[in-house]
Amino acid sequence: MTRTVLDGMAALDDGLKQDLMRVASLAADAARDVTLSYFRTDALHAEDKGVGAFDPVTQADREAEAAIRAVIARERPDDSILGEELETKHGSSGLMWVLDPIDGTRGFISGTPTWGTLISVATSSGPVFGLIDQPFIKERFIGGFGVAEVQGPHGTHPLRTRVSRHPDMATLMTTFPEVGTQTEYRAFRALSERVRLTRYGMDCYAYALLAAGQIDLVVEAGLNAYDIHAPICVVQAAGGIVSNWQGGAAYNGGRVIAAANADIHAVALSILQDVVDG
Amino acid sequence: MTRTVLDGMAALDDGLKQDLMRVASLAADAARDVTLSYFRTDALHAEDKGVGAFDPVTQADREAEAAIRAVIARERPDDSILGEELETKHGSSGLMWVLDPIDGTRGFISGTPTWGTLISVATSSGPVFGLIDQPFIKERFIGGFGVAEVQGPHGTHPLRTRVSRHPDMATLMTTFPEVGTQTEYRAFRALSERVRLTRYGMDCYAYALLAAGQIDLVVEAGLNAYDIHAPICVVQAAGGIVSNWQGGAAYNGGRVIAAANADIHAVALSILQDVVDG
Repeated sequence: MTRTVLDGMAALDDGLKQDLMRVASLAADAARDVTLSYFRTDALHAEDKGVGAFDPVTQADREAEAAIRAVIARERPDDSILGEELETKHGSSGLMWVLDPIDGTRGFISGTPTWGTLISVATSSGPVFGLIDQPFIKERFIGGFGVAEVQGPHGTHPLRTRVSRHPDMATLMTTFPEVGTQTEYRAFRALSERVRLTRYGMDCYAYALLAAGQIDLVVEAGLNAYDIHAPICVVQAAGGIVSNWQGGAAYNGGRVIAAANADIHAVALSILQDVVDG
Repeated sequence: MTRTVLDGMAALDDGLKQDLMRVASLAADAARDVTLSYFRTDALHAEDKGVGAFDPVTQADREAEAAIRAVIARERPDDSILGEELETKHGSSGLMWVLDPIDGTRGFISGTPTWGTLISVATSSGPVFGLIDQPFIKERFIGGFGVAEVQGPHGTHPLRTRVSRHPDMATLMTTFPEVGTQTEYRAFRALSERVRLTRYGMDCYAYALLAAGQIDLVVEAGLNAYDIHAPICVVQAAGGIVSNWQGGAAYNGGRVIAAANADIHAVALSILQDVVDG
């Protein structure tokens, strides 16, 4: 996706990196104001009117993306923007912002503080900087340009993934126990049976916990690019590995495995592939 | 359980109620200091040494209960205390504190802010006051003695459960998708297929969200008394209903259904019973 839109950029200079980090932070602040004005309010639940198919897209989602885009358009008018809710903006700078204003809308409408705002920047080579923001807790997990840290109500701390441990001792997370197609489900179950603990329902917060050294694996399927760009940045900056289920680049979405280290990544990837290829 | 230990008490006077609320709050504060000194630290994960059966009980759990008990013993020496981790203390006052210092230890060791400290007081008639405290977010959900409120970083707000809505529009939560025995699992699945959205992994925080009007149902099985006393108080104070799967009192644990209102309670109970009795 990003390959076709962006020009190649050999390297970003330090001033540009600082500017991108500044703008990402401003944009996340703007999104917080919007999302928190809806979260756990009657205004949010008043929109639950649909009958039949469940559509969790909310006004909050669209307004939050508009708020993020307004900051980027003002501060960096020549950058491209790809977001979940609104049309792609094509810019000339060679940089693309990739956004998900509310990742985990089902968590959002259930009141659980596991959803997040995902903001990231990509070059033609893929995502280079990103953040996962949890507005209700006020935690912001940042990764890229040499930074890997969480800022929040308990202070600012470095992010570092877990060292290698045997799969028998590992914790695995995913959002839905159903996990995609039948084959994807069986692959996930095979992995789940090999680890010590499997937990559900964390949305993008699972990647934040992986980066923070709390868990060992996150495995999902059916993702979009905007679901995974920011998590890739945060997890990799903290020392982890994110790939698709073939071991290749994950930034186009689809089937994703995020791992705390190379050892657990290799073991888990092999278990998933045995089922998918079997 | 409480019936055999406690003497009957017709009513508690206002001064006693105030004192119990004060002590519960002090005890929750004491537990916070302990749990947060372990949560997301290397000290917690250093204890993950067991091979084979997974035992999530941690030093934090035991120390937190000791901290709660120390407050109660100092402030209310004649009350009984039943907790998850330590031996039951038999007192003479006719009141029993029922505690779970860390409800959701698997969430605790995974870094998810969905675990909580449960502190409640029971008479011979069952639980009368309780709180669910989430130390990391610093949210405290309180119910009983005419109070139903959440105190936290976003202020103090009244708790009120949702008004009646069709099951097709309801949100259901439980902790594990496996949900107890095969029969219990099938009953849960039958209910899950009738609601709009099922979410997992919230531990005791699910009851807090029910009390806060964010979801419609929490269904669990295999609970202990100390898992459910405080949630009963908080949910009922907010206008909800908590029962076992036969519609009777839930405070002994086992199979529990907590509902936002009488309508959804009746419908969900009927679905569960059709499977269990079928």
